[in-house]
Order: sequence, then structure tokens, then C-alpha cells
Amino acid sequence: MSVYDKLNELGIALPVPTAPVAAFVPTARAGNLLFVSGHIAKKDGAAWVGQLGINMEMPEGKQAARAAAIDALGTLQAALGDLSRVQRIVKMLCLVNSSARFTEQHLVANGASELFLQVFGDKGAHARSAFGVAQIPLGSCVEIELVVEVA
Amino acid sequence: MSVYDKLNELGIALPVPTAPVAAFVPTARAGNLLFVSGHIAKKDGAAWVGQLGINMEMPEGKQAARAAAIDALGTLQAALGDLSRVQRIVKMLCLVNSSARFTEQHLVANGASELFLQVFGDKGAHARSAFGVAQIPLGSCVEIELVVEVA
Amino acid sequence: MSVYDKLNELGIALPVPTAPVAAFVPTARAGNLLFVSGHIAKKDGAAWVGQLGINMEMPEGKQAARAAAIDALGTLQAALGDLSRVQRIVKMLCLVNSSARFTEQHLVANGASELFLQVFGDKGAHARSAFGVAQIPLGSCVEIELVVEVA
Repeated sequence: MSVYDKLNELGIALPVPTAPVAAFVPTARAGNLLFVSGHIAKKDGAAWVGQLGINMEMPEGKQAARAAAIDALGTLQAALGDLSRVQRIVKMLCLVNSSARFTEQHLVANGASELFLQVFGDKGAHARSAFGVAQIPLGSCVEIELVVEVA
Repeated sequence: MSVYDKLNELGIALPVPTAPVAAFVPTARAGNLLFVSGHIAKKDGAAWVGQLGINMEMPEGKQAARAAAIDALGTLQAALGDLSRVQRIVKMLCLVNSSARFTEQHLVANGASELFLQVFGDKGAHARSAFGVAQIPLGSCVEIELVVEVA
Repeated sequence: MSVYDKLNELGIALPVPTAPVAAFVPTARAGNLLFVSGHIAKKDGAAWVGQLGINMEMPEGKQAARAAAIDALGTLQAALGDLSRVQRIVKMLCLVNSSARFTEQHLVANGASELFLQVFGDKGAHARSAFGVAQIPLGSCVEIELVVEVA
């Protein structure tokens, strides 16, 4: 099953990426590695605002991580033209906007990780770090960045 | 002196890695780069819980960073089969679970950095970032991730 | 216009890098990728101390990010001998020492990003993540690390 068949099956329409709000580019390539900029989680086109352990619970954070991952797929589509050029999702950094008492960043991050596994199968199995940060641009609850190997 | 002789001399037995607690893999390789997932510091098999500047002092944090580095060596052993395939520890990210007042993350991180230098010599000399984070999965005091060049 | 002409035009003298204060090296290379260690922002040779949203406003943080970027250029000069060997600033991680209420990390990070664009032109256009952290070594307000592609 192709990546696009899989996206259809999951009912996911790839979003058209919006321009970065600051002085950087969505992706930069060096050799076969594509570095994907941090994507903040969004809801209805604006930052998905919240802090885990303060005014948001784990399940919503996990949904937000999934939303950020879908936006990152839109960015990959725009950068590569064809998602079948993804050889491997190599590495994800998942930042969770957290109070000093929230300790389930790994479960929040699964919202993105599980999506990559569903969409890319073995090619979606990635190394990862997840941790709690003090804040995220625009107050978003989650931010993810990727390193992707491309053909 | 081989890496294994050095480990013997230091009295370090390589741990057998435990499976990740979430939807990711311990390492992912792209070309000659091996990306090693974030390893939280553990003590007696469970998260080494604490926050620097709140309920833990720098020397214990440094010990915890060393413990996380030893676990990362176990992961490298499992991934590569032979630690002599490590060409270079290229880059470490060291996250220190910190209050807003603790400013010695670099000294905590040395617990891991010094171990890599002891074990790998020049091949262990790495670029690094260390900083304080709001929390770490399961409440661990330190988390490290690596980029390793392999033969 | 060469990189050095551009630096002259901007009135920037490349600093001579100081030795790391801990057990790591300023840069490590693997293939064509040069990994540049986290550089904390400095003022008059010491850490540029402050926390955004507590005792520092965005414009000063942005200046500090620019200062850290200039120090990183000094490190690149020392590592490469010639800044024209920079093929691409591929990726920046920008850590902003932030309270839980400060949400303009992307504007702080622009202080570094805009400098790289000015100095390197298209080769300075990089992928990036910026976020708020609980603390930074020595209390500095900003820390940046880079991945650079070299010829």
C-alpha cells in the first residue's frame, strides 16, 4: 500500500504548509539528510495553546503532537514532491510545553510517532527524544522537528 | 587498549538495553550516522528521579549523566555488535531537569562527556549542548541523546 | 561579495573562540557535516545573564542571540580556516531561557537567523527549532547550536 493510500485510509488530507513566521526555511537538505524545522502544533490554523500539567491533559497533548506530525508531512510533500522519496524518518525531537510536575512527555510524543509508523511502516520507525520545555513559540503545547533520509 | 579493555579497567559491565517505553526505536542509521534516542538516567532499573536546584545537587546529577551514558553504550553495543565500530561520538544533547535557578548543566553533562572520553579516547571527543528543561519523561533528572559516526 | 567583505560591511570582527568550559570540543565533523556545540550568549566576555519574561525583554534577547551567532562564526573560522568553505548553514537549535509565560522565542532566535542570512546569503537559509528552556549554563539568556555543511 502506498503512502498516499495509507493517508486516504486514515482520512488524512495533507495540509499546504504555511510560510515560517520567522527568518528560517521549512527544510534544509545536506546530502541525503533533510532537516525539517520545528513545527508547532496548530488547531484551526492557529497555535494549539496549552501547557501540560497546567491547563491540558496528556490525551489532548497527544492529539496535538499528531496534528504537528500531519503538518510536517505537508512540509515533506512540499519539499520532496512525492512522499515515496522518504527513505526513513530517522529522528524526531518532541518538545512538550510542560509544568515542572508533568512527566508523560513520552506519551504525548507517541501521537506523532504512531502516525509516522502508520503512514510509513518500517520506514517510519525513528530514534527520538522527548522532554518538557518551559515554553514554545506562540504558546503552542507541542513542537516537533525531524531528520529524514531521502532517496 | 581496546574499548572493552577500557570498560573492564573502569569496572563497567555493559547493560542489556530495555525496550523503549514508547513508539520509537533505540537507534536509527542514515549513511554513516547513527542517531541514538534519548536515554533517561536510571537507578536500579527505574527512572533516576529528581530536579537539579530543587531536590538534587550537581554531583548526583553528574553521576546520573554518567549512568545514562553507560546505558547508551549498552544500546550502541546492541546496535553495532562491536563498539570498535564507533568512529566518533559526534554530538551529545544533554537535558538536565532543572529549576529556573540551577545554572550548572554543563557540569552535570560532564558526567557523560568524561565517560565517553575515558572509553573512546580521541574518538570520544564530541560537540555538545547542555541546558535545563522543565521536565523529563518519568521524572528522570537527566536525558542524553547522541549522534555517532560508525564505520 | 565574499563572506569577509560582508562581515566588514556589517562591522563585525570575528572573535577568537575561548576554550569550552567543560569536557567537550567546539566542533566535530562527520562526512560533510560539521556539528557545532551549543554557544551561550556572552556580553563583555561573560555569560549574558537573563531570563526572557522575567528580567529581560525580547529585543535584548534578540541582540544576545546575534552575539551568540557571531561567536559561532568565530568557532567556524577556527575550525575551517576559511568561512567560504561553509556550503550551507543547515540547522540551528535556539534555546531561550524563558519563563512559562514568554512565547516569543521565534523572535529572539531571529537575531541569529538574520545574521546568518546577511553573512551567507542563500547559504545561510537554515532549518530551525526555537523554544523556551528552564535554564542555560552560567545563567545565559540564549544558547545556539548548529549543523553546517562544509565543502
